[in-house]
Amino acid sequence: VNAEVLAVGTELLLGQTVDTNSAWLGERLALAGIDCHLQVKVGDNHDRIVAALRAALRRADAVIVCGGLGPTHDDITREAIAEVMGAPLVPDPAVLGRIREMFAERGRTMSANNARQALVPVGARAIPQVIGTAPGLICPVGDKVIYALPGPPHEMREMASREVLPDLVARAGPASVIVSRVLRIWGLAESRVAELLNPRIEALQGAAGGVTIALLASSTEGIRVRLSLRAHSPSAAGEVLDGEEAAVRALLGESVFGVDDQTMEGAVGAALAAVGLTLGLAESVTGGMVASRLVSVPGASAWLAGSVVAYSAEAKRSVLGVPDGPVVSPSAAMAMARGAREVLGADIGVGVTGVAGPASDEGVPVGTVFCGLVTPEGAAPSVRLSLQGDRDQIRQAATMSVLDLLRLRLMHPPEGP
Amino acid sequence: VNAEVLAVGTELLLGQTVDTNSAWLGERLALAGIDCHLQVKVGDNHDRIVAALRAALRRADAVIVCGGLGPTHDDITREAIAEVMGAPLVPDPAVLGRIREMFAERGRTMSANNARQALVPVGARAIPQVIGTAPGLICPVGDKVIYALPGPPHEMREMASREVLPDLVARAGPASVIVSRVLRIWGLAESRVAELLNPRIEALQGAAGGVTIALLASSTEGIRVRLSLRAHSPSAAGEVLDGEEAAVRALLGESVFGVDDQTMEGAVGAALAAVGLTLGLAESVTGGMVASRLVSVPGASAWLAGSVVAYSAEAKRSVLGVPDGPVVSPSAAMAMARGAREVLGADIGVGVTGVAGPASDEGVPVGTVFCGLVTPEGAAPSVRLSLQGDRDQIRQAATMSVLDLLRLRLMHPPEGP
Repeated sequence: VNAEVLAVGTELLLGQTVDTNSAWLGERLALAGIDCHLQVKVGDNHDRIVAALRAALRRADAVIVCGGLGPTHDDITREAIAEVMGAPLVPDPAVLGRIREMFAERGRTMSANNARQALVPVGARAIPQVIGTAPGLICPVGDKVIYALPGPPHEMREMASREVLPDLVARAGPASVIVSRVLRIWGLAESRVAELLNPRIEALQGAAGGVTIALLASSTEGIRVRLSLRAHSPSAAGEVLDGEEAAVRALLGESVFGVDDQTMEGAVGAALAAVGLTLGLAESVTGGMVASRLVSVPGASAWLAGSVVAYSAEAKRSVLGVPDGPVVSPSAAMAMARGAREVLGADIGVGVTGVAGPASDEGVPVGTVFCGLVTPEGAAPSVRLSLQGDRDQIRQAATMSVLDLLRLRLMHPPEGP
Repeated sequence: VNAEVLAVGTELLLGQTVDTNSAWLGERLALAGIDCHLQVKVGDNHDRIVAALRAALRRADAVIVCGGLGPTHDDITREAIAEVMGAPLVPDPAVLGRIREMFAERGRTMSANNARQALVPVGARAIPQVIGTAPGLICPVGDKVIYALPGPPHEMREMASREVLPDLVARAGPASVIVSRVLRIWGLAESRVAELLNPRIEALQGAAGGVTIALLASSTEGIRVRLSLRAHSPSAAGEVLDGEEAAVRALLGESVFGVDDQTMEGAVGAALAAVGLTLGLAESVTGGMVASRLVSVPGASAWLAGSVVAYSAEAKRSVLGVPDGPVVSPSAAMAMARGAREVLGADIGVGVTGVAGPASDEGVPVGTVFCGLVTPEGAAPSVRLSLQGDRDQIRQAATMSVLDLLRLRLMHPPEGP
């Protein structure tokens, strides 16, 4: 069985809303072993939705449509599906009753527009709504099927998990699943990762029914190594992937900072929580970006004291006690780390200073960043980074590098004095 | 002229990467007055990319393909386009030379895979690469055209802005120049902006060959009001748009914070530079996000002293001198503003504290944010905000709100004491 995803909404084409529904469905379809070769976005236009549905049904066994089931005059997915089915729309009394109940529970009056949401093409079945007012639809078209789901992501996900994915899996019969795992890497160039993994990739190409390895690079979030595998069940795949993950980790070592959705800031937060130490930052070139990423981790208050964003040279001297002299230097980074630790009353201090451009500063070239780190055991030598890109990319890469430095230090605390 | 977008990459279909390129291009196409009716995602599969390109060329005048131009064996967009053009791929010496230079500059050796990136279908033209190693392509197919752009968003955006969008606009012909201007709004709900603009929108519908007004809303970047006009020349359009901008500003007042690519942080920076005052921040809930946005403005060191990200209650008390008592309160926000001003030696102090969730804090509901502001003339009353959304959305909206508050205060300095 293969399925396509059709996201409906002019706001998606205009870029006012980024379509995350298709990505989520794509992942779930892969996990369920259902191929998805094409995903399409179309606006709120009857003829174009009808054309997109017909084209998708020519190529695929199933189409999952997201969006356009709401109560406004822009919401026309229901009518488009009815036209493709060649079936009239009739009110479904059970669905209508549920919408009425929902309005009564909220103490509001149901409008005629909301009654439209109870229309179901003859031959189709409504998927009862649990969260919003819009029901979904399962619409047979010959031996193929159109599923319609509401656009709001939490409604869509709930309904897809409850009815659509199980229905698709049942149609596919006993089959295999595709399971992926992503290892996230920082500190190695893409070409170096490829070189290190090459023997493993070549060995796998010889093996039957094995794991495939793919590399995805991003300048600001590092490299992702995707392991994927077709298997009879997720648990069977999980065991094979455990073994493969171990093999890849043996080649890449500690440059692997996370798995799947784990972030660098999450890894640092977990490491700090594990050792029970608090962190104080002094940021110049990153301007609060390191702190902001750490604050995005729920529960950060347990291990993050704060950050002094000392952007001016005066603030570096008066707040952090950085001595006179160049403020983009290894010794300034170290003084910032010491100052942050003291001012914020933290166990660990980290200082980062550098030049993000557009122009060089104090004779230091654009992309140069110094990072200082002080732990209860003492200071580590300052680290010098040479980063590529524009102002924003340099700041983002500096942020990732600083967090990674801290992560590695927390994995290998130095001997005490 | 109408254009479709084709995003290439198996990682997009599997949901490992959310396709934000299509959304960005959709927005820019709309701003350029070019229709975009369909956006498609396809995996790294030669036959399916070829089929998707052919289908798009049947429907549209132009296709913008993103992704699949990299150096690895998965990157096959170039070959698929050559097949659709019916043209062989030949190396472009200028492109090859540039790739070689880039590797030499970085002190690295160019691999044979990177040489593949210099292949160009006969009849196509390479778009020189500025950021990454992948050049883009402009590929005529009969009287239609395929544009190929690299997948990494910053490379894609730079190349699209520099070559693809101007080329598309030129194809639309001199008689059909569409010029747009976007006014950026913060502090008003979308429905309120619609209400205020309605008389003007209705008046324009009566007028011939006039300006059209459209609203685009984003939860974290405010509302954009797009004025667009078909005219004989950009300069003629500019005059009309000047008049229309004035009319819209008269209706929306000071909630207009910028035009086109002007950002809120840019507006604040310009206002600070104009009055010659420096700013010190104290951030809790935003965790450095306000500072980070201000640092992204080149030349920020002239007016930004820094920020104390006091995430823990202790840091608020010890570094900023916030008195005992609740730290998510109007008085704490004010104390933070005073503390930041003093500690950082700045003219203006701003403090922001609040609850981003997931759980409420000190009995204060999620989304509550307090903002304090102290200028040389004295303190303004603290402002309370009630923001919607998840943790990240609340932090981003808080950041915009704080910057906007400062912008408005700088426009209307209070009388001195």
